[in-house]
Amino acid sequence: MNPSSRTSSAAELQAFIQRAFVAIGISEAEAASIAELMTRADVNGAEGHGVFRLPQYIRRIKGGAVNIKPEIRIEREAPGMALIDGDNGMGHLVMRFATERAIEKAKKAGVAWVGVKASNHAGPASLYASMPIEHDMIGLYLAVGNANHLAAWGGLDMLLSTNPIAVGVPAGAEPPIVLDMATTVAAYGKVKTAAQRGETMPEGWMIDRMGKALTDPKRAGEGLLLPIGGYKGYGLALVFGLLAGTLNGAAMGRDVVDFNNDDTTPTNTGHVIVAINVAMFRELTEFKASVDQLVRDIRNSKRLPGVDAIRLPGEQSHAKREERMRLGIPLPAPLVKNLEQLAAELKIDALGS
Amino acid sequence: MNPSSRTSSAAELQAFIQRAFVAIGISEAEAASIAELMTRADVNGAEGHGVFRLPQYIRRIKGGAVNIKPEIRIEREAPGMALIDGDNGMGHLVMRFATERAIEKAKKAGVAWVGVKASNHAGPASLYASMPIEHDMIGLYLAVGNANHLAAWGGLDMLLSTNPIAVGVPAGAEPPIVLDMATTVAAYGKVKTAAQRGETMPEGWMIDRMGKALTDPKRAGEGLLLPIGGYKGYGLALVFGLLAGTLNGAAMGRDVVDFNNDDTTPTNTGHVIVAINVAMFRELTEFKASVDQLVRDIRNSKRLPGVDAIRLPGEQSHAKREERMRLGIPLPAPLVKNLEQLAAELKIDALGS
Repeated sequence: MNPSSRTSSAAELQAFIQRAFVAIGISEAEAASIAELMTRADVNGAEGHGVFRLPQYIRRIKGGAVNIKPEIRIEREAPGMALIDGDNGMGHLVMRFATERAIEKAKKAGVAWVGVKASNHAGPASLYASMPIEHDMIGLYLAVGNANHLAAWGGLDMLLSTNPIAVGVPAGAEPPIVLDMATTVAAYGKVKTAAQRGETMPEGWMIDRMGKALTDPKRAGEGLLLPIGGYKGYGLALVFGLLAGTLNGAAMGRDVVDFNNDDTTPTNTGHVIVAINVAMFRELTEFKASVDQLVRDIRNSKRLPGVDAIRLPGEQSHAKREERMRLGIPLPAPLVKNLEQLAAELKIDALGS
Repeated sequence: MNPSSRTSSAAELQAFIQRAFVAIGISEAEAASIAELMTRADVNGAEGHGVFRLPQYIRRIKGGAVNIKPEIRIEREAPGMALIDGDNGMGHLVMRFATERAIEKAKKAGVAWVGVKASNHAGPASLYASMPIEHDMIGLYLAVGNANHLAAWGGLDMLLSTNPIAVGVPAGAEPPIVLDMATTVAAYGKVKTAAQRGETMPEGWMIDRMGKALTDPKRAGEGLLLPIGGYKGYGLALVFGLLAGTLNGAAMGRDVVDFNNDDTTPTNTGHVIVAINVAMFRELTEFKASVDQLVRDIRNSKRLPGVDAIRLPGEQSHAKREERMRLGIPLPAPLVKNLEQLAAELKIDALGS
């Protein structure tokens, strides 16, 4: 009998994720920390980066690709920076550590730039860019993606990933602005979703190796993702990768490991988190009032014909969070099935038990 | 008699620009500093940001919009940051001051983030992102543009400028990587050039107020520039503006002054320059070897059919610089005419005399 789709509360989901990581050998405290961040991803509507990834994470831990007992540490440090060695631990743990250090350092330094190497996939970029907001700081996050799906502009060798940027900005009465975007027109997860649903992709998402539009997502393996703005998005993916990868001694270019198709090789994932202490630049309430004003000017703009609302980055995620904390997180049937299989395999209580 | 196009050496051009600023009341030393940076823009092939802007700069100084005797100073400071008050001076002077502070601070702090307010148009972003390279640092520059030419995604109110990003990365044997890009598909200067030449614009550069493609550059005043990647480019223009403008107490959103159509109002232009001291993160020669390797992997990639070469950001500018230092800077006839008029108006020796 196939399981059907269901809804899970955040607490149930978090407890289940924690059980899975404990079963695989991660400490209670660290499993709780990862589970909390993964659940937050689902609550915020970043489904492609939440519990959906759990089977893959467990598979890679079993394969020996990820260290379950990492000694995450500061390898180098100066007043305005730090370099974190993640010791190949789960990316969520490494990035929480790095972001907390950045926030702590920015209290004195004003701005702290914390680079990370030897990390792993850490879920949605917005998680970390948002953390400084609670401290009245701006967060800026960059990362090297964990699979190369694009080439240099005009090229065919897939040397670049969808290297994302996320920026979180505190506001006053308005919700914070949280931008979280890949440097490609479509993230690879969207291509996979289209394939599962049997849909065709719009032109502009991918090209084949002759440079022609590729619209059949089942043929995605033959094609390349397109960067936003053509050569401009290529430039962004490149420099974000240099900052998050090369600068930190993390993987970039030919060294990036495709973690979807490999359960044994450490990815040496690189990230950057910058915490920017607003009050060091301007009186905090003035800054927040300016952000509120800008948000309202944008939201109340005249609109193009057919547009029903103008959105700020993070607005849809904010609405989803409020809804899902109230009504729970919808889990589609294939995911429920995968999680049941995982529970059986790890001999842990199933979701919601 | 109309002047024809001509070629000028960098030295001639720089001397002429300096004479113009001295004639309008700027000190010899500061005029030389501005002239050197403006000439560098032309030498690097950023023609839209070099001597082409001189008549407009002089007009705005005459109109009282720009302070010719600024006291540029550090208003706030912590180990990892500074806020510069440009005192409404020429942007080139303010940004040179800010970038030198960032480099100096990054020697100790590892990374220094320097925000700027009360500045003015400073020429091409790449000038400042490149300066840290000579000190084996990475430069990251953001700015709020000096005219709003785009709206929030779905909107019609022009609340955003083409807010650029530039990143300069030192390499070893290869030329440095220097990305310099607006967050719109086309910079507004390209639209103006198309109009001058009587060309039509490709679809995707601009839309009219009904959301339809606008391809006649003479109608540009009725339209909006399109951001790269649709809502993604809108998000980038927004957060870069928050970082370079709002955070520093500089103009953003409704407060941006259109400096093309106003000779009397200070723009309160905001910028950010971040200097990142590579050796604080990694052994410098290792870093440079990694950048060289990446550059070569990209350059030697297999290519799409019809593509003759794969370029790195900054490569064309680098080639242009070598050519123009040897052969001089070509100046089109309308520009030569404008500069002759300017010389007469300021009673200074003409270009090349």
